[in-house]
Amino acid sequence: MSGISPLAPKKFPAMPEVAGVRLGAGASGERYKGRDDLLLAEFAEGTRVAGVLTQSQTPGAPVKWCREILPVGRARGLVVNAGNANVFTGKAGDAAVRRTAKSAAKILCAPANEIFIASTGVIGEALNDARITQALPALYDKIGTKSWPDGARAIMTTDTFAKGAARRVTIDGESVTIAGIAKGSGMIAPNMATMLAFIFTDARLPVRLLNSLLRPATARSFNSITVDGDTSTSDTCLLFATGAARHRAVTRAGDKRLNGFRAALEDVMTDLAQQIARDGEGASKFITLSIRGARSEAAARRVGLVVANSPLVKTAIAGEDPNWGRLVMAVGRAGEQVRTEKMVITIGGHKVAAGGKQAPGYVEKIVARHMKGKEIAIAIDLAVGAGAATVWSCDLTHKYIDINADYRS
Amino acid sequence: MSGISPLAPKKFPAMPEVAGVRLGAGASGERYKGRDDLLLAEFAEGTRVAGVLTQSQTPGAPVKWCREILPVGRARGLVVNAGNANVFTGKAGDAAVRRTAKSAAKILCAPANEIFIASTGVIGEALNDARITQALPALYDKIGTKSWPDGARAIMTTDTFAKGAARRVTIDGESVTIAGIAKGSGMIAPNMATMLAFIFTDARLPVRLLNSLLRPATARSFNSITVDGDTSTSDTCLLFATGAARHRAVTRAGDKRLNGFRAALEDVMTDLAQQIARDGEGASKFITLSIRGARSEAAARRVGLVVANSPLVKTAIAGEDPNWGRLVMAVGRAGEQVRTEKMVITIGGHKVAAGGKQAPGYVEKIVARHMKGKEIAIAIDLAVGAGAATVWSCDLTHKYIDINADYRS
Repeated sequence: MSGISPLAPKKFPAMPEVAGVRLGAGASGERYKGRDDLLLAEFAEGTRVAGVLTQSQTPGAPVKWCREILPVGRARGLVVNAGNANVFTGKAGDAAVRRTAKSAAKILCAPANEIFIASTGVIGEALNDARITQALPALYDKIGTKSWPDGARAIMTTDTFAKGAARRVTIDGESVTIAGIAKGSGMIAPNMATMLAFIFTDARLPVRLLNSLLRPATARSFNSITVDGDTSTSDTCLLFATGAARHRAVTRAGDKRLNGFRAALEDVMTDLAQQIARDGEGASKFITLSIRGARSEAAARRVGLVVANSPLVKTAIAGEDPNWGRLVMAVGRAGEQVRTEKMVITIGGHKVAAGGKQAPGYVEKIVARHMKGKEIAIAIDLAVGAGAATVWSCDLTHKYIDINADYRS
Repeated sequence: MSGISPLAPKKFPAMPEVAGVRLGAGASGERYKGRDDLLLAEFAEGTRVAGVLTQSQTPGAPVKWCREILPVGRARGLVVNAGNANVFTGKAGDAAVRRTAKSAAKILCAPANEIFIASTGVIGEALNDARITQALPALYDKIGTKSWPDGARAIMTTDTFAKGAARRVTIDGESVTIAGIAKGSGMIAPNMATMLAFIFTDARLPVRLLNSLLRPATARSFNSITVDGDTSTSDTCLLFATGAARHRAVTRAGDKRLNGFRAALEDVMTDLAQQIARDGEGASKFITLSIRGARSEAAARRVGLVVANSPLVKTAIAGEDPNWGRLVMAVGRAGEQVRTEKMVITIGGHKVAAGGKQAPGYVEKIVARHMKGKEIAIAIDLAVGAGAATVWSCDLTHKYIDINADYRS
């Protein structure tokens, strides 16, 4: 598909090196011609890893592999290929993953069960892993500490732009870096990570802590976006921590020294998640949906996601139609408690519904003007409790159908 | 929107009279110009009623009214208007319903709490019920026993054809008639009746029995279709039984004399439900999705509906792309148990997936040929249990977006 999403950031961000991480991109030729489709990352000895994987009942072979080796919590390498997801490929698919891990392990002089694998692309076609393993040695020769844009580009499928984000913080007064890359633009829905995302940091943190940081941040970032309500078989979010930073050990999740790091991690992940929604297949508008007054944060997120997934809401936004009745409909079907007569809905800050009906000062023209913009802000107060969450999405356009009615050909 | 759905039945069916039911159509001018938008039905004294209403947390005023009067179980009249759903219209909306019921009650010489009301159309706009009540007297003068097509046409919104179905059976050797009309083509999803449907019979059955017949039949018909996953605030399915038939009283749900009636009722409702899916906004293909091997019937239905709602599945079908990997993805995200390595998927009877991978004898050309047709048959065996269910849906096309990005203008 041609053309970069109109909602894309102006450019790929400047991203710092992360001590202990080297990466690079190469071409396997497995599916795509004339572009990189392979990412290899090497991690220093002692690197710890945490991950969240798709909750799909039909996960891909790489997901099963990651699930198997994650409990060990150590990582020395990461191999990602784009174009073939290696899903529903039977025992041959599992063997392909094992061979890839083994081959990378040999090159990186590391145990195979410390090599993480992720694949994205078409489902159900046999993966020719020989093309990948043959490309690895040459790729290894050119890995470096600055290849973020190349790495992010190599893992793209229908993405129209490469996605990266980074932050610097301190732990204990010592500088720590967090850098992440991600891909995803269709088959995006919140039932876990919903795409591929790899976050790298030089922080020195035990696996248990990495997990306790990663899970809530995933809920508020990658699990708070939706493009089409579909969940991939390959969703993978991995957080690698090399431990090269010079701060003293942190062992308790409640340790205050972690506060800045926790916020920065969520920031990087939210930034990447929003970029994915901005690259939603065919997206012409970026939607920020703030729900408050819900029974709980989780309830607020559920309502937000139901509204964000509603084809009728998404098409109304695509059509720049201030049809707020569809928001009422979508809130109603979420199944979460709402006090209809106290609920307040605003679009672009303008109150459209209140008191169980159209808001008294409602002026359709004001809302219509907001809807002509590229950034749509909708806020809904359910008037039940104190739970709040924000969800990001995009509209549903003809281009989504163009892309998806013709993906494979 | 112009043009009748390419999946529509050739013509409106010949429908018999139902003793004790008279109906007619009229024009209120509330929203639409130059067409009927009002249905009035009169029921003989002694008519019993059962109903299923939307589970939306933001139901319309007519739904609240029906919920209030359903426990009485008696019905003398039905008023339905199209164009304005009278939803999220505050206290004024409730008052409009009460005035409409009162006005119809006066004309029909019946108590107001035996007058059922349903509305469909735009949400959040005040209903000018005076237009409805003013039109009722003239409409009452022309009601009759044969106005099924007119009645079915009057309740349409974005529907492209009127929907009716009827069956004759016997109870106790005596002839009994079941006739139904329905409307719906967008905002169709399974969280109850998902549209307006009115079923009329002359059977003589107590309210308790009507309810016990209606609920499972709703699960297998109207709750087994989906167009876009959105649930209306106005979903209403009512079953009116005039008791004019001459069979002896039936009081137990287990009574074998009911078997034929039960099957015929489900038949009428399934017929109407399928017509709604065939009129799905922008539909170019009718999809029959048979799930078996699930833990239970309900689990099978859930999987079927998740697959049928997947935008990626729906767009692949619109694009005539035999991309069965998306079926695997959608099954996986349903969250129901599946034995991946034993699961079997067929499209148009041709095995595409088995043994955890592409089926050995798979020939893409055969599937591609099936997908060029208007009727798509997909069968999925989850290989877990004995639960089975069939779900009906349609594809997702550019026309859906045309219709919904511009509904109100």
